[in-house]
This record gives sequence, structure tokens and C-alpha cells, in this order.
Amino acid sequence: MASIKDVANLAGVAVGTVSRVINNSGAVKPVTRKKVEKAIQELNYFPNEVARNFKMQKSKMVALLLPSIWNPLFSELAYYIEDELDKEGFKLMLCNSGGKPEKELYYLEMLRQNKVAGIVGITYNDIENNVSNDIPIVSIDRHFNKKITCVTSDNYEGGRLALRELVKAGARKPAFMGSVTSVFSETMNRRKGFVREAQALGVEYVVYEEPDPIVDDNAYINEFLNRHGDVDGVFAITDMLAANYMDKARRQGIRVPEDVKVIGYDGIQDNPFFHPILSTIRQPVEEMARMTIRLLHNKIEGIPLEKQVYHIPVIFRQGETT
Amino acid sequence: MASIKDVANLAGVAVGTVSRVINNSGAVKPVTRKKVEKAIQELNYFPNEVARNFKMQKSKMVALLLPSIWNPLFSELAYYIEDELDKEGFKLMLCNSGGKPEKELYYLEMLRQNKVAGIVGITYNDIENNVSNDIPIVSIDRHFNKKITCVTSDNYEGGRLALRELVKAGARKPAFMGSVTSVFSETMNRRKGFVREAQALGVEYVVYEEPDPIVDDNAYINEFLNRHGDVDGVFAITDMLAANYMDKARRQGIRVPEDVKVIGYDGIQDNPFFHPILSTIRQPVEEMARMTIRLLHNKIEGIPLEKQVYHIPVIFRQGETT
Repeated sequence: MASIKDVANLAGVAVGTVSRVINNSGAVKPVTRKKVEKAIQELNYFPNEVARNFKMQKSKMVALLLPSIWNPLFSELAYYIEDELDKEGFKLMLCNSGGKPEKELYYLEMLRQNKVAGIVGITYNDIENNVSNDIPIVSIDRHFNKKITCVTSDNYEGGRLALRELVKAGARKPAFMGSVTSVFSETMNRRKGFVREAQALGVEYVVYEEPDPIVDDNAYINEFLNRHGDVDGVFAITDMLAANYMDKARRQGIRVPEDVKVIGYDGIQDNPFFHPILSTIRQPVEEMARMTIRLLHNKIEGIPLEKQVYHIPVIFRQGETT
Repeated sequence: MASIKDVANLAGVAVGTVSRVINNSGAVKPVTRKKVEKAIQELNYFPNEVARNFKMQKSKMVALLLPSIWNPLFSELAYYIEDELDKEGFKLMLCNSGGKPEKELYYLEMLRQNKVAGIVGITYNDIENNVSNDIPIVSIDRHFNKKITCVTSDNYEGGRLALRELVKAGARKPAFMGSVTSVFSETMNRRKGFVREAQALGVEYVVYEEPDPIVDDNAYINEFLNRHGDVDGVFAITDMLAANYMDKARRQGIRVPEDVKVIGYDGIQDNPFFHPILSTIRQPVEEMARMTIRLLHNKIEGIPLEKQVYHIPVIFRQGETT
């Protein structure tokens, strides 16, 4: 089959010129263009070749699906994902799918058509049934069954760590405060680790949960304050929930950390200027982002992965609330 | 010239099947693929046709250039830009070019090759000399001369408003605290408005500036505290600078707002859980984002725009610091 070089030789021009004619890009003199087009026809230069070239350019794009880029955790994640992609010459397409899960389907279709090289991020759809084993998708935080690789912080160890730190700070009856998603999310292991560690240490504990998403944060927190006035430690499933809880608690005269120790999860505060500075289980966002892209890259290249779920270690970051 | 329909007719298959062969996407039986490839060769089906189709799909993408998506102001901006693009079926490509201005050049090249339909955002390069008048670029905050439309908050009015609010809160000697960029940025009008309003009202004022970027924030703020211990109001050019100043001031025993009233610019706090809640000039981020995309859309469609710079009104948002 004729190659682009054959076309260039026959037309007596450089390969770059042929490429510009094919791609309709850059300046090519009409007379040169004619010559190239003639050579393409004479050699039956096959359009698939062109399509493939285009695809190779197109396939240097990766789609990132997130509930919302406005969320500080997700914008940090997007920052490092773009940085890691850039090292390999990949470009990032961004989709906020929060509240509009159907937006994701477009990107799955693009992936099927090879118009993006891969998809990463937090998805709402049950994509598992629609994709094959080797399709380049890496999920963050949401663990499907077998086909889709998942990268997540070590939520279970994070839960254990939070319980231990609350106890270390003096809490005798700590509570877990969270929500239960209808589909299994790795984030639910935060509660599991918390409960397991409390049981292992013989510490009295409370689990306070409602179905996700929590529609009325205020009612949810006030109900907690009413029902569990005796807890002296709170591990909230996110930093934002921890901050919201503290705001309500303070209005009832509860002092943090004197009366209640509080630990969040995420580590969204990247400067020490706004208070309270939360004690928190810090998500290893940079490592998660870079790992996600490295795994995706392996999938694109057809390199088998060792695991289905990659747990990245977390650390406790001391703030002003324990 | 043969069309994809001619190929389909000759091969006795549907147009979609030809498309799948050309694009190498989806399942096509080997025997069918052979038939299609034969028809393509017989008809000299011209690759340019394919290229054009690809390009038309590609041009539903818009590139967003930002210093860093991690910045809360920029992640809010990206959120609304993606949302507005989605209404017209456009997809967003994201580029963090902070510290790597050369990354932008790739997207300018893509635009020249029609691989993206347009570019919006905050650019570092002096793109003006490289682009023609009608090229679909909309700049945010940075005003080039004539060719490139700019959307920005009304920085000048924001500066005036900040001065008036500081005076209203009791400040007798307010200071502007900022930085001077080497290329003109619309954000520099914040100082101009501040100074103009102080002069109009006959208020004593201070301007404290250093060249941008400020390498050592701490040294910069400490020098301000040493030099200007007598000011009783501060208008900082961003919320982050205001928060950083307050942190340093508090360590010197300066109380906000009792001793010094403070106003920032941006409005990055979107919840009331972290303190101090800044009094600030709120950027109309959503309106700026939607306006940017609507103007870009007009440029893509060849509709002439009325102005070179679009100033979106700002408001003062009262917090705990005035």
C-alpha cells in the first residue's frame, strides 16, 4: 500500500507538504496542491492512512469526568492529572458531569470511536456493563467489579487512623458522620476502618449516616447534635462536612477541640490563612493523579496491570481541631 | 469527486459501515472491510473528504488556558465555561500554562489548524502579533490592543468601591496593596480606581506595590507592616493576599477590623465555614464565563462584536473584616 512518502516522492515535494494538503492546514500553493492531489490519486493512497494519522493526533486526548471542577479537591486532582498527561504529550478534555450523568455517555462514545485515548475520573453511570476488559478507563474512588481499574486513597486505613487520632486527642465516645451512597464507593471504607479500629481498641462509638446525597445539610447536622449530644469526637467523611458541623456546633456553645475533637477527610486547605485549620486525613491527591495517568497509559499501551484497585497511603495532618 | 455514499453504494453496505472502516472504529467483518476498501480504491475516494469530516468534528472543541486550575477563582471560572460550552455542544480542553507559557503555543497551533474552534482564558504569550483580527480568541483579564476581545470584571469601579467601603467602615488612611505586572493587565485598574476615588474624596492614601510575581510573600507583607504601621485600612489586590496580610498582621497584635479594615478582591469563599470571612469585591465569575463563551461563539460564527473590552459589574460583599 502506498505511503505518504511515496506520495511525496511522486509529487516531488516534502512529506510535510503532503501532510498539509491532506490536513488542509498551512499554506500550500495551488499548483503544489494539484501535484499532491494527483499523486494521491495515482497511487491510490489509502484514506485509512489519513484516518489513522488523524486518530493518532486525536488519541492524544484524555477525558476527565468529575462531578464538579469547582470542588477544591477535584480542581487539585485535575491540576496534577493535566500535568502528568502533559509529560506524555496528552491533552485533557474536562467534563463536569455532576447532576447530568448523561453527559458522560458522550465521552464513552468518543472512546469507542477512538476519538479520545482514554477516560479517567469519577463516573456516575454504571459503565461496567458497557465496556470491555481492556478499554482504557481508570476510575477514581469508585470501584466497579473487575473490568475497570480503580485508584483511591486508602480509605480504610484513613478511617482507622482517624479513630486512633481522636482517641489520642482524648475522645472517649467518637462518632463517624457520613452518608451512604446507593452504589458502592471506596469512600465508604472510611466508616469501616473507623468502626473496626474502635472495636479493636474497645472504644465506645457512634455511626451517624443518611442516604447520599444529603439534601438538607443543616437538618442533618442539627439532628446529629440533638441525638448525640454526648459524643466528644467527630470523624466527618469530608472536610466540608467537618467544617459545617463545627459551624453549627459552635452556635450551640460547643467548643472545638475542648469539648469535641474533630477530624475531616481530604485536606482541601492548602494555606494556613483560613480558620479553623482542620485536623484531617489528607488525600494523596498528587500521587493519585499521577498513578491514575500512569495506569491509563499502560492500559492504552496494552500492558497488563497487576491489581484492580490501587490504594494510595494517607497521612494524618494535625490542625487546630484535635 | 466520489462521496462516502458512492463508496457505500458500490460496496453494497451502509454509509455507517464505510465510516467505521475509514475511522477504524467499531466492529466490521473482515469480508465487509475488504469490500469497502476495494470500493474506496476503485472510486479514488479522496482522503481530503475524510480529513474534512474529521476536522468538522474536531472543531467542536474549545481550549481554556489558565495559570492553574487549582486556584479557586479559576476553577469556578472553568466550571461555568464548561457549562456554557455544553449548551452549544462544545467540549472543553484544559491547559494549565502557569510557569510554562510555551504550552500555550500548542493550542494556538491547533487553532490555526482548525483543530480547536477557539481559545479562551488568561494567556502569558504576546499572542497579539501572531493572530489575525477575526481569529476566535477571547481573553480574560488581559487586554491586548485591538485584535483580541477581552472580558474582565470592572476592576476600576471595583477599586473605587473598595476605597469608599473602607472609608465608610471608618478608615482614615487606607492603603492599596498589590503588584505590578510587566505587561498591562486589566487587574491594574483596581489600583487606579482606588487612587482616583481617594483623590476625589480628599482621603489620604498609600500605594504599596512590587513587581509581579512577588517571590517572597512574607518579606513583602512584613516590609509593608514596617513601612506603613499607620494605615487603618487595606485594599489587597486579591483575597489570598488579604488573608495572608491578616495572618501576619494578627501576629503583630493588629486586630481586624478594629485596628485595620481589610477588603480583598475576587470572592473566592463560597461557604461561611472558614474564617475570617473576607469583605471583598466579588468578581462576577459566572457572568464573565458565560459572556466569554457567547462572544467566542459570535467570533466563530463571524458575527462582529461591538466592543473590544467587556467590563462586567462587580459588587461589594460584606464579610467580617470591615
